[in-house]
Amino acid sequence: MSLKGNSIVAQSGGPTAVINASARGVIEEAFKHSQIEGVYAAYDGILGVLNDEIFDMSKEDPEVIKGLSSTPASALGSCRHKVKTDEDVQKILEVFKKHNIRYFFYIGGNDSQDTADKVKKLAEKEGYEMRVMGVPKTIDNDLFGTDHCPGYGSVIKYLAAITMESGRDTEALWTHDTVSVIEAMGRNTGWIAAGTSLAKRDDEDAPNIILFPEVPFEIDKFANKVKETLKNYKRCVIVVSEGTKHTDGTYIAEQKGDFAKDSFGHKQLGGAGFYIKNLVEKEVGEKARFVIPSIAQRNGIHFASKTDSDEAYLVGQAAVQKAVEGMSGFMTAIKRLSDDPYKIEIDTVELSKVANGESLLPRDWITEEGFFVTKKYLDYARPLIQGEVPINIKDGLPVFSRFKKHFI
Amino acid sequence: MSLKGNSIVAQSGGPTAVINASARGVIEEAFKHSQIEGVYAAYDGILGVLNDEIFDMSKEDPEVIKGLSSTPASALGSCRHKVKTDEDVQKILEVFKKHNIRYFFYIGGNDSQDTADKVKKLAEKEGYEMRVMGVPKTIDNDLFGTDHCPGYGSVIKYLAAITMESGRDTEALWTHDTVSVIEAMGRNTGWIAAGTSLAKRDDEDAPNIILFPEVPFEIDKFANKVKETLKNYKRCVIVVSEGTKHTDGTYIAEQKGDFAKDSFGHKQLGGAGFYIKNLVEKEVGEKARFVIPSIAQRNGIHFASKTDSDEAYLVGQAAVQKAVEGMSGFMTAIKRLSDDPYKIEIDTVELSKVANGESLLPRDWITEEGFFVTKKYLDYARPLIQGEVPINIKDGLPVFSRFKKHFI
Repeated sequence: MSLKGNSIVAQSGGPTAVINASARGVIEEAFKHSQIEGVYAAYDGILGVLNDEIFDMSKEDPEVIKGLSSTPASALGSCRHKVKTDEDVQKILEVFKKHNIRYFFYIGGNDSQDTADKVKKLAEKEGYEMRVMGVPKTIDNDLFGTDHCPGYGSVIKYLAAITMESGRDTEALWTHDTVSVIEAMGRNTGWIAAGTSLAKRDDEDAPNIILFPEVPFEIDKFANKVKETLKNYKRCVIVVSEGTKHTDGTYIAEQKGDFAKDSFGHKQLGGAGFYIKNLVEKEVGEKARFVIPSIAQRNGIHFASKTDSDEAYLVGQAAVQKAVEGMSGFMTAIKRLSDDPYKIEIDTVELSKVANGESLLPRDWITEEGFFVTKKYLDYARPLIQGEVPINIKDGLPVFSRFKKHFI
Repeated sequence: MSLKGNSIVAQSGGPTAVINASARGVIEEAFKHSQIEGVYAAYDGILGVLNDEIFDMSKEDPEVIKGLSSTPASALGSCRHKVKTDEDVQKILEVFKKHNIRYFFYIGGNDSQDTADKVKKLAEKEGYEMRVMGVPKTIDNDLFGTDHCPGYGSVIKYLAAITMESGRDTEALWTHDTVSVIEAMGRNTGWIAAGTSLAKRDDEDAPNIILFPEVPFEIDKFANKVKETLKNYKRCVIVVSEGTKHTDGTYIAEQKGDFAKDSFGHKQLGGAGFYIKNLVEKEVGEKARFVIPSIAQRNGIHFASKTDSDEAYLVGQAAVQKAVEGMSGFMTAIKRLSDDPYKIEIDTVELSKVANGESLLPRDWITEEGFFVTKKYLDYARPLIQGEVPINIKDGLPVFSRFKKHFI
């Protein structure tokens, strides 16, 4: 069972507020096990392996490593490089062999778990003994085999907070800026947009309407809902998922009517909020403001979920523990034992299942009308945003960690 | 000197994170003085006076009043109604007479101080004894006669934080999303955009470039600066003030080249970030993301400046104290005694001076090149973001106050 050698950790894909907490969990746990000799990290995800840009964690200040829990984005560097070819996988394994890397921890979404799986299988085929473990990460909350994904609790906590705040702005200035539109990330599912529902404790609270990719967007139905909301509350706050689609399956941000093309004629996402703003002004006749939190939403460590951060650490830590025990080819996952009191345990799921699966927002967690969530969603999501990540403040602003990166 | 009667407080214009702290200062202080009988508030700013929609603070829960300090936007309601005609001023005075209002506290920017001044002068002319005091408020930081404006410290603290966070995202994912653009409010001055400079503690930190309305925008010079930054750091984070203008004085968001027109062909602000994103993609050839915090930036109580909030309370409180002492026709203001240690005292400035003046970001607080601030700005701004406003959290999200509004 005991496998001696070096370990490597890498981060992949879109950053989150807590992906560094997972890296910290991996790194601190790796240091505890004598069979793990070098504790390394790849610079910029799998690119760092492919380019042999690997740095040594033992040369970093332990305080900087500790500070990962209060540092957003990917402190190791990330990438969106898709490992598609066998040559790439072969190259990765060669670099691992060169540095006697026997433990590979890959923090990422389903593409990353797919890469991890391929590396594991090639190593097996070539008789190179190594342990490969995935660590879940995505604000999109769409990974298969885990109750929820580290990163999700923090993105919805932050977005719900700014929905509350922007809602109060609209409530205050309804005679002038009557409608506000907040664009949430989420290209394929409405998980993130759904989270803003937590902002609503009272009928008077924002948001009034949430638009989900799961519910085909109908202009008339939507415009009528806005009018009805204005009649009841004199104002309307709308959260729109960037992945919201028309009934014909095209993204609203790519609408033919040119609502959201940029000036170069590019069709682009990130235009859903703009589209809805324009539509409200044209179809409802009310002035609308729009908020595009974009990348700020996924890095909001200044108001991130402690529950999320703690779990992010745990799934990283457990990946190392399980690898040391002999496990390989799995992603750590979160299994929910109960909603109230909220209890979880760390589970595992096969990498190949994660690579090919996805977890969608159930249709019955959205109201039949399609403009809000049901109690099932609220019971699921509320535990995920509890607590605030403690951050160090210096001169009024957070202090983040940055590695010196001593390349091996 | 002793003038018995009722008081009214109103909030005007764009909300801020701390304008409610000023309202709390006014209300709690008003309750302390026996000569102030009824403590009232106008619903939706001066509109509430014009429409005789006035509610009674003695019927609100003191805990809700206390909670104003952790509630963003304008809890009394606000408006953008400009009082231009003599009839309007006459109407305001009539309503005041009807309700025996002898103390008027108006929290707002220069338009509001102008209104307050007009009411004061008409009351004098008609021999109606009353005291009128303005209370400064604007995220734009452009009011004359005060070192800085309540609301400013909080907007720049929050924007600097998300600039740090978005900067880390760009640093992590520079191989894919190389440039990020953050659009700051500020139609006429670069005060708000300037505040994001506080995010930069180190050469590696965001922001790399700040675009100010004070510096005419030159496409080539800017594109070269972006290229130079990319050469040095491999990534670039740009903060653009929505009020940035071309050399011919037109807003970049209104550019002739159609960069930022909406789909209806409307010229509109709030498009500066979009314009810069497109320009970077076209002129520099790098993919850019854009963040439009919009109204979220001015309501970020979840990460607001305690210094700002405390001062907001003080200027409200002092307005009442000074009115009770007999003063009228002035706005309370902040006079800075020293930067380090930071010390202020409450000052006053004539309403008519505020109404007609403005405070611009000095050109020598911007570097000669025009893409960043100088030490003078940093020394000025740093004290304004110190400390965090304590907020009550329930179920992971802030708790805000909302009035029941018992109309008199």
